[in-house]
Amino acid sequence: MSKFQQIAQQMQQQIEAGVWQPGDKLPSLRAQSELLQVSLMTVMNAYTLLESQGWITSRPQSGYYVAPGLPRQAAAVRHSEQTDTNRFVFDVLQACRDPQIVPFGSAFPDPELFPMRALMRSLGDVSRHLTVSDAIDNLPPGNVELRKILARRYTRQGILVSPDDIVITNGAMDALNLSLQAVTEPGDWVIIESPAFYGALQAIERLKLKALAIPALPGEGIDLLRLEQALQRWPVKACWLMTSHQNPLGYTLSAERKQQLVSLLAENQVALIEDDVYASLWEGEQPPLPALAWDKGGTVLHCGSFSKDLVAGFRVGWVVTRGHALRVQQLQLMSTLSVSTPIQLALVGFLESQHYDQHLKRLRRQLVSRKKLAIAALKRALPREAVIHADHGGYFLWIELPAGLDSTLLYHQALQKGISIAPGELFSASRQHRHCFRFNAAWPWDQRAEQAVTILGELISDQLD
Amino acid sequence: MSKFQQIAQQMQQQIEAGVWQPGDKLPSLRAQSELLQVSLMTVMNAYTLLESQGWITSRPQSGYYVAPGLPRQAAAVRHSEQTDTNRFVFDVLQACRDPQIVPFGSAFPDPELFPMRALMRSLGDVSRHLTVSDAIDNLPPGNVELRKILARRYTRQGILVSPDDIVITNGAMDALNLSLQAVTEPGDWVIIESPAFYGALQAIERLKLKALAIPALPGEGIDLLRLEQALQRWPVKACWLMTSHQNPLGYTLSAERKQQLVSLLAENQVALIEDDVYASLWEGEQPPLPALAWDKGGTVLHCGSFSKDLVAGFRVGWVVTRGHALRVQQLQLMSTLSVSTPIQLALVGFLESQHYDQHLKRLRRQLVSRKKLAIAALKRALPREAVIHADHGGYFLWIELPAGLDSTLLYHQALQKGISIAPGELFSASRQHRHCFRFNAAWPWDQRAEQAVTILGELISDQLD
Repeated sequence: MSKFQQIAQQMQQQIEAGVWQPGDKLPSLRAQSELLQVSLMTVMNAYTLLESQGWITSRPQSGYYVAPGLPRQAAAVRHSEQTDTNRFVFDVLQACRDPQIVPFGSAFPDPELFPMRALMRSLGDVSRHLTVSDAIDNLPPGNVELRKILARRYTRQGILVSPDDIVITNGAMDALNLSLQAVTEPGDWVIIESPAFYGALQAIERLKLKALAIPALPGEGIDLLRLEQALQRWPVKACWLMTSHQNPLGYTLSAERKQQLVSLLAENQVALIEDDVYASLWEGEQPPLPALAWDKGGTVLHCGSFSKDLVAGFRVGWVVTRGHALRVQQLQLMSTLSVSTPIQLALVGFLESQHYDQHLKRLRRQLVSRKKLAIAALKRALPREAVIHADHGGYFLWIELPAGLDSTLLYHQALQKGISIAPGELFSASRQHRHCFRFNAAWPWDQRAEQAVTILGELISDQLD
Repeated sequence: MSKFQQIAQQMQQQIEAGVWQPGDKLPSLRAQSELLQVSLMTVMNAYTLLESQGWITSRPQSGYYVAPGLPRQAAAVRHSEQTDTNRFVFDVLQACRDPQIVPFGSAFPDPELFPMRALMRSLGDVSRHLTVSDAIDNLPPGNVELRKILARRYTRQGILVSPDDIVITNGAMDALNLSLQAVTEPGDWVIIESPAFYGALQAIERLKLKALAIPALPGEGIDLLRLEQALQRWPVKACWLMTSHQNPLGYTLSAERKQQLVSLLAENQVALIEDDVYASLWEGEQPPLPALAWDKGGTVLHCGSFSKDLVAGFRVGWVVTRGHALRVQQLQLMSTLSVSTPIQLALVGFLESQHYDQHLKRLRRQLVSRKKLAIAALKRALPREAVIHADHGGYFLWIELPAGLDSTLLYHQALQKGISIAPGELFSASRQHRHCFRFNAAWPWDQRAEQAVTILGELISDQLD
């Protein structure tokens, strides 16, 4: 095989592997000849051959492009990989990425609700002023100004938090995982709610811990009596709960129950990992206090995030912990090292501008109104046997179908019609809650949403027959 | 206690906890009165009390500030936390952050060598053009353009990598940890080099794996015969190695040995986690090929990063894997979810501009010249018993002192004089290599560096006496 044929064959393989995709511009003849250290003529011959075979096309005055509509061969092989229980969560999350899919199964609010322009202005400022030493100043525990701003926000609720008690993380998932790892060893028992955020189930599996699921009810939350019994019976090390606007049920524990919870766990020397990522999305007069407010020593590792109320794509969260900050930082240095510097600084710039509180006020108002519309539409469209659990705050609805109905089947049927939901079994380690699903009400209520809800109603009715 | 006294006491506690630090501006009287829902007069009384006690000062026309030079009470308590073997690594890394310290112990090159301005221009562009849907488009496996750019860079070396084989991660540490976790279960055996990058030791500890350390020699690298014996004897699951510009020894395995390594591991169905973060920092005519080049199936998980050759603070790395990409993505969704969107896009903008290759050429030249100066100065300053191991590529020197000398002692003594080194025991799970240390030669060679090396020489001579 001559040199130009070899080059043509290599490029064909690269196109098949997706290195160059339909419509991509190929390197110019000159660039390619320098890169491959062959003559211009050899590259020209290779390109001409590829063009004659239909792999690439040339455009006058512009160059060579991969031909549109070429099939890729590589993808097919790749999905023969191992599957496990996490695969389903993964598939549900991936489905929500497709803009063609109505995202009722998404965990995130509509990003159009976020102050993207102001955030990007702040990022633009960072890009003009970042210094070389900034990169070092933002290593764990994270940017000191950002930690001070967060500490001050807690003091506004009467909770004294030192910036030294805060570690900035790559989103709340990172915060929760680092927290759990800081207080457990493989094989330890961890209490969770049932249903629980699937991230908790995954973290427990990933860290080879054992889960004890305590039932939680819509409107009420976790059963403290059964929690106490579990603590007496098992050598529990940690308890991972959402205390406000729980995902997926939506409930907020009352102040009394939060206080009881913290003192119960403190007595038993069990760490509370408090997932409080929806903290700012309260309804009514006053935000609920987190369990952190009743923490006297090192019981609570409280995790927060900007991903649900400000910007999803920045990936910034934090842990507040009065006893484990150093351990969390060590674990961070061993896993991601730190959080991206420009991103931390862009957040500082935005948060210092006072826009955040104004934004949150508007966001809360918008979420309340969207949730109302969603509930009204669901009531119209779903058969009367479906119970819609809606709580104050957050943007999730928990929809309970008659026992025996199958929300996993519903998920697959709905997806075929371009609608995603979050089926109940995602929120259980033992495949419970299969007759329930989580519904994200933080999307604009338009004709497309209305139609999607009608289709959901029909699919559920079909199962009822 | 009256209301204003309560407020004054709360603010005093906040100042002690570092929520407000010396020189910080306090909220205005009006802002504070709205926040606390008390009268302006109450806030005024509280501030006046705090001022009379010396906690805060007022500046005319400007407002109230925390008084300079106040002692903080909080920090003292915090360091009674658990200590472990990782603590020392943590301390060494933290020491390098102080600009007063000569950073010979640092793992990073001088950030002044990085094209910060061009990168920031690219970030500025992102800040002007980011769309709402970009946040979703950059979920795992990461931005497709970034993965295509990386895939094309591999094809330039004749390695066919599909963008589907690449997962973008939060830096190389994240890539390495996800890779290791993708192919092991707690309790599994993992082969590493001795000395090894301390990140490998930490990851193995963090994931509760068992390490088998195979000796490596400067200039040669890991002993393949002993590696083969270990594979026969133990049920090894993975092997984590640096094949080029190894940290800390600096060696690059020859192409023949890389090929042998891959086929040996493939035969034994052992995954190779190839840490190749210094790949672009080669010397000479041609870059060495990574072991990935000889991977026929799913043996190699090859990890790279922009942190050592382009920008440290962005925290972007990647894994190339032909068999485990999906598993790595699943693990990523469970830990950090994804990599910050604006950061991925800023890198795409920069990398598309062709500046990267020009920058790398210049960087390699600068590193070669700095290393020469460092070696010459070390030869002048260190006692002749010290052996300086310098290899082609990278920027680490491995300095071997006579057996019996103690580089951990040297580390502590040098740190007191404002100089950091990376003592040998950091690179060993069993506290070996205590007579060696790693020296970072990627810093400008100036009078301060010269003096620091002289002091190191004196400290070593003192130990020799």
